[in-house]
Amino acid sequence: MKDFFKVADLESVLEYAYDFPRVETEEVLLYKSSQRILAADIISEADLPDFARSTMDGYAVRASSTFGITEENPAYLTVKGSVVMGKSPPFSIGQGEAAGISTGGMMPDGADSVVMIEYTELIDETTIEVYKSVAPGRHVVEVGEDFCRGETILSNGQKLRPQETGLLAAFGKERVRVYKKPVIGIISTGDEVVPIDKSPGPGQIRDVNTYTLSSLVQEAGGIPVSFGIIQDDYDSLFTACSLALDQSDMVLISGGSSVGARDFTIDALSALPESKILAHGISISPGKPTILARAAGKPLWGLPGHVVSAIIVFSNVVRPFIEHIGGLSIQNKKIVASALLTRNIPSAQGRIDYVRVRLIEKDGALWAEPIFGKSGLINTMVKADGLVAIGINTEGIDKGKKVSVIPL
Amino acid sequence: MKDFFKVADLESVLEYAYDFPRVETEEVLLYKSSQRILAADIISEADLPDFARSTMDGYAVRASSTFGITEENPAYLTVKGSVVMGKSPPFSIGQGEAAGISTGGMMPDGADSVVMIEYTELIDETTIEVYKSVAPGRHVVEVGEDFCRGETILSNGQKLRPQETGLLAAFGKERVRVYKKPVIGIISTGDEVVPIDKSPGPGQIRDVNTYTLSSLVQEAGGIPVSFGIIQDDYDSLFTACSLALDQSDMVLISGGSSVGARDFTIDALSALPESKILAHGISISPGKPTILARAAGKPLWGLPGHVVSAIIVFSNVVRPFIEHIGGLSIQNKKIVASALLTRNIPSAQGRIDYVRVRLIEKDGALWAEPIFGKSGLINTMVKADGLVAIGINTEGIDKGKKVSVIPL
Repeated sequence: MKDFFKVADLESVLEYAYDFPRVETEEVLLYKSSQRILAADIISEADLPDFARSTMDGYAVRASSTFGITEENPAYLTVKGSVVMGKSPPFSIGQGEAAGISTGGMMPDGADSVVMIEYTELIDETTIEVYKSVAPGRHVVEVGEDFCRGETILSNGQKLRPQETGLLAAFGKERVRVYKKPVIGIISTGDEVVPIDKSPGPGQIRDVNTYTLSSLVQEAGGIPVSFGIIQDDYDSLFTACSLALDQSDMVLISGGSSVGARDFTIDALSALPESKILAHGISISPGKPTILARAAGKPLWGLPGHVVSAIIVFSNVVRPFIEHIGGLSIQNKKIVASALLTRNIPSAQGRIDYVRVRLIEKDGALWAEPIFGKSGLINTMVKADGLVAIGINTEGIDKGKKVSVIPL
Repeated sequence: MKDFFKVADLESVLEYAYDFPRVETEEVLLYKSSQRILAADIISEADLPDFARSTMDGYAVRASSTFGITEENPAYLTVKGSVVMGKSPPFSIGQGEAAGISTGGMMPDGADSVVMIEYTELIDETTIEVYKSVAPGRHVVEVGEDFCRGETILSNGQKLRPQETGLLAAFGKERVRVYKKPVIGIISTGDEVVPIDKSPGPGQIRDVNTYTLSSLVQEAGGIPVSFGIIQDDYDSLFTACSLALDQSDMVLISGGSSVGARDFTIDALSALPESKILAHGISISPGKPTILARAAGKPLWGLPGHVVSAIIVFSNVVRPFIEHIGGLSIQNKKIVASALLTRNIPSAQGRIDYVRVRLIEKDGALWAEPIFGKSGLINTMVKADGLVAIGINTEGIDKGKKVSVIPL
């Protein structure tokens, strides 16, 4: 019999991510930067806004001109003119004076607040009646109120959401330096695996994993590159791994779940330049037979052949590595969803169990219904909305308990 | 003074989505189908798997050959051979017989279960000792256990996640029919708005909204097309709207937040072919001055000029329209995150208030900290992880209450 695995726990495997360098950076056009990872701190070169702006349609005034007034006791202000959008007003506002202004208009000198149009009435061409007092600064965005010159507005390692893209536009950044998308080599192994355009013969199956993993890699911000289907023999696997290692930032080898194939994977990974097996088995289920190696300073993975296991290992173990080498160091969304369990889930101690769940709305609450099934059945994953992780020291979770759901 | 808006509530605005037709469909290569919306039901043309497979490394046996055996009282089985991966075994298994098999190997005729290798010992070349009984079907995936021939495996309107892509690969679907990505025309308006490569003069600002909206459109599965920055005058706006309407499936007009500009937008939208103003104001905050029109059977939106308002309206109102016309009718993820409020949030009745929140982990719980600030300040959106919606009939939510968080 073969040696049993030297199984590592999930936390210590995830720690290895930080041992790998980040990818290079590149400059991209801002309109192509959506969801990319910023590769430099961005310092504001000007105040934003760089002029005081009205946030309402109305009249720019000195607040003191409106103090003490009420609907019964209005003030009458002299209209000096109207602010033209996108122009500097050619007049200033003194005590008892006002200027028409639109949302986004530049505040005239001397004015410190805006009275909403709803609280005014035009009496004649140069006079308005004002029914309501305003405080200084009311309905005005001050110079630098959004961002000040010299401030760090965005940080290296941050993912660019639409609002970050908008902010870069506000500062005129037509181009932005981001991390390159990491190139992830994918090798599918197994004598039984045929390309998807072939009809599988008896005992053969189509190459599900290359497609599933490619899609997962894209979602994680990487570029998948397929290195084809490799037969279960050492030489072919070693050659494919060498090529993939040379042309990728990380390599995923899927399949080879039989004992013999696992041996080839370990042997091929061990023979690569400067190689070290970092984990041979992880204490998670499904996904225990996962292998992590380092060669030429890059991570290589031996993933389970069953597609369900491969997806679970990818989402919980591999993805953080892609994010790390892809430059992500600031996580914006820490949003965790929770649901109530519809039934007891048993679990073995000493490992993390990932249970597929379907989410159901019932009685105004969100319920997680476990989907049990062999990890060789992709239908369980198609039905699933997410995963529930059952901790390493937990024997199971009772019906009705609140659990966190990892989206799929 | 201008007429006040005829304000519609959010629900009735969202109902209009179903009045608009879906976009055309197209065939794409499977490896380019990630996150696309399936445009046809997929029926399985074969059983999956189409042969019984082992899910473990071990020996294929008849379960009845192992009945009653224990570690103290093992059975001795005759090894007929080993199943070669990807081949049909040239032998069958009778009572008292076994065949070596790897994970994924094809079960030989006559065998109905697999004994894990851990519970066996090879005595000589043709004999194994078995320590543990197995039930029929143990460690075997039966023919059609994943999907049966003739079953609907995926449905029109479903988004293709990695597992769905994998499933299509399993059935050899190299190409897949999906909805085209809806083309969303974007018009930025305002005399004060300059392109981002220009230095804004006094009273001018850069075109933040085109970039922010383009990025939001991409995230929603659409293709953004910019129709430039249009001055605040009726003729220019009408011409731009006509062009955008002709070349897009939906049009977003942003800015024009001053009273005069809003009038131009309404007038231009009203003059388009077969046009109707469906909503002139929505009872949400921020975002109240939003306009929805239909022309030539397509939706057109007048969005607020303030970028924070534009993002909130997009996420909560516009996005469902893009998803609908883009073919999405089955929502896989109903995952809603919740957090506890760090402080009271006041809210006006008669509208839905969207409050930006930052998420903080504290004492093992997730807390939502409201970020208050003018909707002209993009920094509030950059700091935000999500939004909390306060219902139309609610006066506010108290500190410590659990709230749902809409991710940003």
